Amino acid sequence: MISKKMTELVKGSSVIRAMFEEGRRLAAEYGAENVYDFSLGNPNVPAPKAVSEAIIDILKTKDPLYVHGYMSNAGFPEVRRAVADSLNERFGTSFSEENVIMSVGAASGLNVIFKTLLDPGDEVITFAPYFGEYRNYVSNYDGVLNAISPDTSSFQPNLKELSERISEKTKAVLINSPNNPTGAVYSEETIKELGRILEQKQKEYNKPIYLITDEPYRELVYGDVQVPFVTKYYRNTIVGYSFSKSLSLPGERIGYLVIPSELDDYKAVFAAAGVATRILGYVNAPSLIQLAVSECLNETTDIGYYERNRNTLYNGLTELGFSCQRPEGAFYLFMKTPEEDDASFCDRAKKYNILTVPGSSFGCPGYTRIAYCVSYETVVNSLPKFRLLAQEYGL
Amino acid sequence: MISKKMTELVKGSSVIRAMFEEGRRLAAEYGAENVYDFSLGNPNVPAPKAVSEAIIDILKTKDPLYVHGYMSNAGFPEVRRAVADSLNERFGTSFSEENVIMSVGAASGLNVIFKTLLDPGDEVITFAPYFGEYRNYVSNYDGVLNAISPDTSSFQPNLKELSERISEKTKAVLINSPNNPTGAVYSEETIKELGRILEQKQKEYNKPIYLITDEPYRELVYGDVQVPFVTKYYRNTIVGYSFSKSLSLPGERIGYLVIPSELDDYKAVFAAAGVATRILGYVNAPSLIQLAVSECLNETTDIGYYERNRNTLYNGLTELGFSCQRPEGAFYLFMKTPEEDDASFCDRAKKYNILTVPGSSFGCPGYTRIAYCVSYETVVNSLPKFRLLAQEYGL
Repeated sequence: MISKKMTELVKGSSVIRAMFEEGRRLAAEYGAENVYDFSLGNPNVPAPKAVSEAIIDILKTKDPLYVHGYMSNAGFPEVRRAVADSLNERFGTSFSEENVIMSVGAASGLNVIFKTLLDPGDEVITFAPYFGEYRNYVSNYDGVLNAISPDTSSFQPNLKELSERISEKTKAVLINSPNNPTGAVYSEETIKELGRILEQKQKEYNKPIYLITDEPYRELVYGDVQVPFVTKYYRNTIVGYSFSKSLSLPGERIGYLVIPSELDDYKAVFAAAGVATRILGYVNAPSLIQLAVSECLNETTDIGYYERNRNTLYNGLTELGFSCQRPEGAFYLFMKTPEEDDASFCDRAKKYNILTVPGSSFGCPGYTRIAYCVSYETVVNSLPKFRLLAQEYGL
Repeated sequence: MISKKMTELVKGSSVIRAMFEEGRRLAAEYGAENVYDFSLGNPNVPAPKAVSEAIIDILKTKDPLYVHGYMSNAGFPEVRRAVADSLNERFGTSFSEENVIMSVGAASGLNVIFKTLLDPGDEVITFAPYFGEYRNYVSNYDGVLNAISPDTSSFQPNLKELSERISEKTKAVLINSPNNPTGAVYSEETIKELGRILEQKQKEYNKPIYLITDEPYRELVYGDVQVPFVTKYYRNTIVGYSFSKSLSLPGERIGYLVIPSELDDYKAVFAAAGVATRILGYVNAPSLIQLAVSECLNETTDIGYYERNRNTLYNGLTELGFSCQRPEGAFYLFMKTPEEDDASFCDRAKKYNILTVPGSSFGCPGYTRIAYCVSYETVVNSLPKFRLLAQEYGL
């Protein structure tokens, strides 16, 4: 008696979450130390101490009616101001609290913005490989997600194809950099060219095309890699952010949307996003953790830990003969599977208690995503297992 | 450029939230102590100390990767088990963790269940007066909310009209007791009769009709009033709960759904509700506060405070000649407006810095909702202002 849409969705329910449950099962059977679970983007580096210190300090010094109470649907004004100030300082922007809506993680931010923008049949374009949930977030509002085919040479977005595919129906383009699942960071050149194409298409179709940039991994980059702040390159940009990865708080569901004042129809979009936050049942981002993150805007989790994992895994896998691009950010490595059928590869890997997600789940078959937000020991100890797997394939 | 649906929604945006902003404006202008803001159900009695103690204890003793990490979309199994155990102990039910889904407050629970159940055009029946957001929650999934006309003699649901109005299209009936906005508690007799009608209609139409019971005020009842636990009276019942009022945590967005095993199509409904939690972007209820409330299941806020407010306000208003039913639960009093036009009454009240919400917002014109979750002083000091208002109307 469930709805037709949900019947389909339950059938094809997230491969990633299913693997999460599978990982727990294997860990119970073989012991966690003998399972190499690279399936989920669940940070393994703990939240900085500053987060729990902030929470305890808030609980001890502030009025509980304030700390746990309702506020505007967009969030505490002082928290939104702190977020705006922090962005302005880092990126030379000029946002105010009227440009920030606190959200229940990035996932709710994206739902809010799609609820705000999409009429049935409206098209959102994204670039393969892409986070599979995007399809659901868009479909929730009867929009259509169209994916541009991957450029597997660089995993930068295929802008030539974008240019050809934008149509009258295109309401928004959705990007994600640092990227899940590839670990690629879109270069400034890419963002500039993307902005140029969108400007041109806006003129051609005489309507705004919003660029939605999903940035939960913005802080997770290695070495001197820079992540361009997209609002500076294209006026009709909306940013979705999450503290899930940067502060290792994925369970807390806390993030924000940035809706710049220079956006076409800014006032309506900002007001509607507040209403969408309310009627979708989020009401507001969780209050205590809103206050806590606003005290920790300059903190990040230990990125060096992920970087060491990245180096060891990338070097180890390439030495074994696997083929992959060196990730520049996030905590994912996207590896070419030695057989065409990526699901079959993942099944073979499971024999060695290695769990990775088929690239097909990201619209990019022939690859697999290895989430290296795991202990260093897991990375190190997985390599002999990967070696056995490589041998199976005669690498 | 926002969606057509949202354009309409922004126009007719929540009167209640608008008054919230108005209340803040008046407080800034006249001083908070001179504004009698009865507009919002924002608890004024602080959360029990046990909540912050639990949070601090969890932060100090548990692994942050556990406390702030992902878990199953349905929530921490041990938290769901604690909720089930607590319900079983109190109500003689036999739930397990497989009957509980932790939600981002009651609002998300309702969204999840409507997403799970509703195909476009499906009907949900509720009883006026009703919480205005129900219309949005149902409309989010292209369902149709139909309201049964109010029985203003008792504010029990009009079951005769329900019986006539249920049709082939009816997917669910939605009730709310203790009731927002009337403070009425549905009696055991009412629930039994409601169950009997639904059983009969299920047979007549040969399909399940789900009874969704929205119970954020379950713990907030006065004297020896009992709130029947509805799953015991009707098999196809789904319960939505929130800790917003019982623990004074409205900003934290924490609650749960109970989906009993005896429900028609239980497995599909439970699985789909988990998927809906994920794809609607909640992902999971906030993790730290999940753990905290599971330590506080036997706690409630100081209900005596609200009871004193109820008594003083009810006695005061009736002595002044206003007409209203004595609330048995929640923290709302639903007063007949001395003029037919409830919006006009509320505007007149505003002259005295009294903010209340027109009954029309709840599908029941000619009344106004007075949310007495305010300080006792506000109640006491508002009465001379209500007296002036009564005099204006020649009461």
